[in-house]
Amino acid sequence: MLPINETHDPRLRSFVDAANAPEADFPIQNLPFGVIRRAGSKEEWRGAVAIGDQALDLSAVAKLHLLSGPAAQAIQAAAEPTLNRFMDMGRDAHGALRAALSRLLAEGSPHEGVLRGCLVPLADIEHAVPARIGDYTDFYASIHHATNVGRLFRPDNPLLPNYRWVPIGYHGRASSIRVSGQRFSRPMGQVCGAGHTVPALQPSRRLDYELELGLFIGSGNALGAPIPIESAEEHIFGLCLLNDWSARDLQAWEYQPLGPFLAKNFATTISPWIVTWEALAPFRVPFQRADGEPEPLPYLTSLANTVAGALDLTLDVAIETEAMRASGQSPERLTRVRLPEAMYWTLPQLVTHHTVNGCNLAAGDLLGSGTLSGPSPGSQGALLELTEGGKKPITLGNGELRTFLEDGDAVIFTAWAERDGFRRIGFGECRGEVLPAPVGVSGAHA
Amino acid sequence: MLPINETHDPRLRSFVDAANAPEADFPIQNLPFGVIRRAGSKEEWRGAVAIGDQALDLSAVAKLHLLSGPAAQAIQAAAEPTLNRFMDMGRDAHGALRAALSRLLAEGSPHEGVLRGCLVPLADIEHAVPARIGDYTDFYASIHHATNVGRLFRPDNPLLPNYRWVPIGYHGRASSIRVSGQRFSRPMGQVCGAGHTVPALQPSRRLDYELELGLFIGSGNALGAPIPIESAEEHIFGLCLLNDWSARDLQAWEYQPLGPFLAKNFATTISPWIVTWEALAPFRVPFQRADGEPEPLPYLTSLANTVAGALDLTLDVAIETEAMRASGQSPERLTRVRLPEAMYWTLPQLVTHHTVNGCNLAAGDLLGSGTLSGPSPGSQGALLELTEGGKKPITLGNGELRTFLEDGDAVIFTAWAERDGFRRIGFGECRGEVLPAPVGVSGAHA
Repeated sequence: MLPINETHDPRLRSFVDAANAPEADFPIQNLPFGVIRRAGSKEEWRGAVAIGDQALDLSAVAKLHLLSGPAAQAIQAAAEPTLNRFMDMGRDAHGALRAALSRLLAEGSPHEGVLRGCLVPLADIEHAVPARIGDYTDFYASIHHATNVGRLFRPDNPLLPNYRWVPIGYHGRASSIRVSGQRFSRPMGQVCGAGHTVPALQPSRRLDYELELGLFIGSGNALGAPIPIESAEEHIFGLCLLNDWSARDLQAWEYQPLGPFLAKNFATTISPWIVTWEALAPFRVPFQRADGEPEPLPYLTSLANTVAGALDLTLDVAIETEAMRASGQSPERLTRVRLPEAMYWTLPQLVTHHTVNGCNLAAGDLLGSGTLSGPSPGSQGALLELTEGGKKPITLGNGELRTFLEDGDAVIFTAWAERDGFRRIGFGECRGEVLPAPVGVSGAHA
Repeated sequence: MLPINETHDPRLRSFVDAANAPEADFPIQNLPFGVIRRAGSKEEWRGAVAIGDQALDLSAVAKLHLLSGPAAQAIQAAAEPTLNRFMDMGRDAHGALRAALSRLLAEGSPHEGVLRGCLVPLADIEHAVPARIGDYTDFYASIHHATNVGRLFRPDNPLLPNYRWVPIGYHGRASSIRVSGQRFSRPMGQVCGAGHTVPALQPSRRLDYELELGLFIGSGNALGAPIPIESAEEHIFGLCLLNDWSARDLQAWEYQPLGPFLAKNFATTISPWIVTWEALAPFRVPFQRADGEPEPLPYLTSLANTVAGALDLTLDVAIETEAMRASGQSPERLTRVRLPEAMYWTLPQLVTHHTVNGCNLAAGDLLGSGTLSGPSPGSQGALLELTEGGKKPITLGNGELRTFLEDGDAVIFTAWAERDGFRRIGFGECRGEVLPAPVGVSGAHA
């Protein structure tokens, strides 16, 4: 477990006023990393941290030469157009830069004047995917999601015997990952309706979101050198929100025997700011499973993981339909879920399991948690579950019905951590929007 | 279909003598691309083409400024430490460079003298993975393999209803792909024996190879812009051999419901030379399925694909055990398979299917064919099939028995194309070797 240090002190305030508002996602205790440029410009992408309603441009700060030692080396790497080199520097470098930035941005900072020249309003920026994602792996770590979905796909056999032992995961597609704001066409794909033996190529009619956390790997491991559970945390750079958009009709037809493929790889949306593992240290909680659940195998067990392997976050899903936008209505919440209730495995366990066979992780690799669903109604992380496989439509506040997503629907994820005695920190927004299917796809037929 | 042109002329000979030997894998009609440096050196990696028993160092050739126009631009890109930029230049650039290199290396070339200074003996080089592989996808395109394996995993339901319609594929792990010569430790993983309900972490006891072709993408497509079957070939840069090493005991326990993960991602070995799609033009054959098999959906159908979408290659698998090495015995062939017998889909169909939902492919992406098994005994591309799930051991020529791979076993793939009226071309070798499992993996228990 990372120690709590002076960067977590709840009394710390920033000279950026908006960072001090109680509900701010980005107080000085957070300092998440992203990659930015002025929206619509052709500027070089560069690393930044969010503070209040501003982004601190790290390439501009690096040029001021205010830092020395490891922090000075780290800011050079963190200022680059992708954060991979910074991520790869490891936990000490990340900590050194965080501590330095905390001091620079604090109220009373002797450098406030020059640093104000390095701020860009969040309203004026656009984001790139913050790292070159070499490989993207998606897990399946919520037992409630696995059970709910299993019931729909395999009514006789919802939770498979391996689930309680293996942190189930599969490889995803890195090329179609984009940051919040992604708008994508409803995917085409093969669908085979009940009672049919010949499929048709058509736009997905069961398009869904999946609420997930994304985990960016910091320093990696060599091929053939597993990461023991005792040091798994050292390889976690930080977290973001992740929407694993899913076409359920494509998925049902294609997923046997090798898993989801075109049902998922048309789009994945992540929130642009990576909340560091260090920033989340105050929100660590014991890893506890319900009574009667087995203990993990020894390679997935450590004292630190038992005492504080889990993380207390709250995550929300909201929908904004075209009609809601037209009438100026705010997005409507569909789901609220607390992470410890959803996760059957801790994030360090996912890292260790991934490498137990010698598989190598690299800086910038992305691990998805899998859909986060809690045990109670209103805590499920996908429409598939909320509507019981599309059988029970949801009625929205304006009277619209939803089983799956309609064209024009935007889905917005938010998340935050709060705990008595510490400053609340947030993840910002992960937003994506569904556009109509393309017209005239070659070879398409009804 | 790519036209046959002067680079395919069987009468062409090279001033590199070994390229003119009838059984040479790398005659002047082949000219496969790879990335090399002198073995054991710290030289910069650079692009090269194989010719006879030599590699032509393209970074050295580029400095001679012998070329002009598109070929001159292409050789600059092909000389880089990864071939991505060259791949991305597209078919015309690839063709221009191939034509130029064919002329430069031909008997009577006016530049023979300076070019001899750019040759490095194959015996003296080492290879890098020739491209930065952004994403690796593995298909399952042999119906015989799917049926054989399905019978073992699901005796009641070997070939699933989707198989004849969907080119089944899944995402693989790019980070653990290495070139021929890879040696890797037998992977650890969870195994749950028959009759057990609690798994154990142990070294895989059912370690296998899978004979596959690898396809490198040339120019990619934008997210949301499917590649129609009519232009799929324009996006194929070339082919290599691929060994999708598989731990069958890990796979059996983990693969439901999301597909193989740790059973595959500990190692994947590819042959180092990419045989270009253009070099393979003379070996294209009609796409034909057995009587009674359905026609693919329209988006996977084109006249060109029907007339010449398939490729006539022959592939061999050989094993070299530690005992065989100790006694100086040559590797022993286990399998010979002809590609058209194995593939239920053509390679262009795999490209098109991958993008029909809008998924974006990028230069350097790698697509695996899936295990190549033919219909007859001795043509199966994995031990799992040759030994009927490990039930019927193979007896090697020296009396050794094999069900799955033993420590010290090396597996060697080779492949070639030949056709009357054309020069035979080969792929070189894809070799990998199994080392013992690591000792003292943290948390391991028997």
